[in-house]
Amino acid sequence: MNLSDFRTHYEPLIQQELADLIQSLSIPASLKDSMHYSLQAGGKRIRPILLLAVLHELGDGHPDALKVAAAIEMIHTYSLIHDDLPSMDNDDLRRGMPTNHKVFGEAVAILAGDALLTYSFGVVARLQHVDSEDKVRLIDLMSVSAGAEGMVGGQVLDIEGEEKKLGLEELEQVHRLKTGALLTYSILAGAILAKATDEEIVALSRFGQHLGLAFQIQDDILDVTGTSEELGKTAGKDESSEKSTYPGLLTLPKAKEKLDYHAGEALKAIAELGGTKPLLEELTALIVKRKS
Amino acid sequence: MNLSDFRTHYEPLIQQELADLIQSLSIPASLKDSMHYSLQAGGKRIRPILLLAVLHELGDGHPDALKVAAAIEMIHTYSLIHDDLPSMDNDDLRRGMPTNHKVFGEAVAILAGDALLTYSFGVVARLQHVDSEDKVRLIDLMSVSAGAEGMVGGQVLDIEGEEKKLGLEELEQVHRLKTGALLTYSILAGAILAKATDEEIVALSRFGQHLGLAFQIQDDILDVTGTSEELGKTAGKDESSEKSTYPGLLTLPKAKEKLDYHAGEALKAIAELGGTKPLLEELTALIVKRKS
Repeated sequence: MNLSDFRTHYEPLIQQELADLIQSLSIPASLKDSMHYSLQAGGKRIRPILLLAVLHELGDGHPDALKVAAAIEMIHTYSLIHDDLPSMDNDDLRRGMPTNHKVFGEAVAILAGDALLTYSFGVVARLQHVDSEDKVRLIDLMSVSAGAEGMVGGQVLDIEGEEKKLGLEELEQVHRLKTGALLTYSILAGAILAKATDEEIVALSRFGQHLGLAFQIQDDILDVTGTSEELGKTAGKDESSEKSTYPGLLTLPKAKEKLDYHAGEALKAIAELGGTKPLLEELTALIVKRKS
Repeated sequence: MNLSDFRTHYEPLIQQELADLIQSLSIPASLKDSMHYSLQAGGKRIRPILLLAVLHELGDGHPDALKVAAAIEMIHTYSLIHDDLPSMDNDDLRRGMPTNHKVFGEAVAILAGDALLTYSFGVVARLQHVDSEDKVRLIDLMSVSAGAEGMVGGQVLDIEGEEKKLGLEELEQVHRLKTGALLTYSILAGAILAKATDEEIVALSRFGQHLGLAFQIQDDILDVTGTSEELGKTAGKDESSEKSTYPGLLTLPKAKEKLDYHAGEALKAIAELGGTKPLLEELTALIVKRKS
């Protein structure tokens, strides 16, 4: 199966799993609507697809794969809801639609984010086909990747970086944490479910780190070269806010070189897994070539 | 040991555990300061003390008890940070000190809350002296108690209740979720660590539910009868905001009757555990008589 068929197959299943997980909750209607709204606003589902692709490449999938994939997408979605708030990035549009707080108000948006984050841990704790040891591994790593030493820490550095000129190393650190940590977690969660060997986990971890940086460099490049229509959000925002970016620090051609370097390293890491891993290779290419 | 000695013994240990847990993180300084600030702002540590008291009454304590107690206090603290935000309760003072967002700004305050919540699950996942099955039980119940079907759902109902007159049943539902769920979790987490029987867990669960309601009714009563100095926050705020409260719905004397009823039911539930449980009895009395 090529990546396009793989995504066509799994995207509706991911969508349905997310809808079912929210539907099953006995909670206030506004909270349910707000959680559901941002989960169904779409997006590329890169994290769930990464997890599913790793499982597919390493074995035969896993009966709880969609639940873990959905839990990760809930964490990603909560982070977007909170990042979009007026006191953070103050975005009115996300994926071409009004942001959560524009529709539900700031209070419910904050709480919907809190609820999605909290629920994601419960979903993993209640998996039917994973033993307790692996659940604890998944939860431990999820907490580190999503928390102060991972994504949340990256968001703090990102906000603080807006007020000063970052060096290249500092910028990479922001992105390793803000984007890379959860992307890498998606890959490693797939590896844990697949009962991967330690060697495979090391290679996949390196794959995730380079993929995460490639993803973020392309994000910065798209902010310069893309249109608001393509992106579903305001283009050129980084430059107008004088935010540190790869093109800003390096020039656009050098940023593209850097993107190619990390994509190449990601492919090298995949090669260490042995055999061909077409889905992961295609995913790497997709992240480099994406238009939004 | 009576409750006063018990608290005198454990409060500095709880404080130290919280400080150590934050200190051990490699994270941006502002995030660390913000997390630390609200954790060290004090408060009654009722949830950690409840967990420790249950463990003490059911057996000989547990080497990971302080870590689980600290994890619960982190969840409670994150909820206070988010509740105090301008788009929520818009409070400038908490426990007599400026609220987190007044000191660190809204963005860092939101992220410090997110980080505390995320970390609490990781702390439980990394316990040294609890088997994986019990870690999963602790995490599962923590997610339910703190999330959309528990505390966060209660906060949504509370916010929505500000715009309308609630009936008594609706008000009780707000408090069961907003305050009761995490208080009950503190008790049940102690029971899980103590390897309590199913019968003990049922009794302790009922204890928690009545204690939670008693706690909240006393909170409402104090808002009418207390002073801002005693409370460390603005007194009379509920009435000035026309918020539904027990004294408002029932009159002050009837609210006090209701408080006594729930305190009595809490004591009955304790009695079902067999023998005397002086710490839990004293804790119930303390919650009824507290001045802040």
